[in-house]
Amino acid sequence: MTNPAWDVLVATCPSRTSLAKIANKWTAMIVIALNDGPLRFGALRETVDGISGKVLTETLRDLERDGILTRTMYNEMPPRVEYELTALGQTLQGPLAALGRWAEEHIELVLRAREDYDQRPDRS
Amino acid sequence: MTNPAWDVLVATCPSRTSLAKIANKWTAMIVIALNDGPLRFGALRETVDGISGKVLTETLRDLERDGILTRTMYNEMPPRVEYELTALGQTLQGPLAALGRWAEEHIELVLRAREDYDQRPDRS
Repeated sequence: MTNPAWDVLVATCPSRTSLAKIANKWTAMIVIALNDGPLRFGALRETVDGISGKVLTETLRDLERDGILTRTMYNEMPPRVEYELTALGQTLQGPLAALGRWAEEHIELVLRAREDYDQRPDRS
Repeated sequence: MTNPAWDVLVATCPSRTSLAKIANKWTAMIVIALNDGPLRFGALRETVDGISGKVLTETLRDLERDGILTRTMYNEMPPRVEYELTALGQTLQGPLAALGRWAEEHIELVLRAREDYDQRPDRS
């Protein structure tokens, strides 16, 4: 099913433009946050602790453009806007959640490695 | 084994500093490129087509510091320097290769989504 010509290691391959969007900490956190269902902008911003409104807006727009999530505005007063993973976005949930889990499960080893590296005689 | 207190969604959690390094297109490509064994700087730069020498140097240093790869200098003339995934880095191979495969396998859907998005009446 995959065109064997797609190769993220090739600079001009369109698949790299997609990798560049998904291999991103904010994308990973947004997709992880949307795992349990649609969220409003404010709730997303609270869940992805520390993200700025500007970066959240831009990342959501990029992900909507790439078909990973939908933005639905409900005609209410005040208007309600919700973001939800598409079927395509749901296929990305596994790989990105695995990356988040890796970061959580290995942080103690990573912290120890950083300490060792910073104490190496050739670093001082 | 995992400390349940680690949570990448929390801005101050150290695991997020690790997610920020690994959820990155260059990290993904470097780790994918090192799947088949150690590579020299020049070979890595050729394999990760389009990466600048500066970004490659910085990303390799970050990954070495985080314990994901080793840098070994061999006393030869001219000196040979090789980069190789550690055991920790090998555990990252699966998640990052899955992300690269996702980008390659879904790029046609992503390209179609971008086209649809750019043609939406509210975008013009």
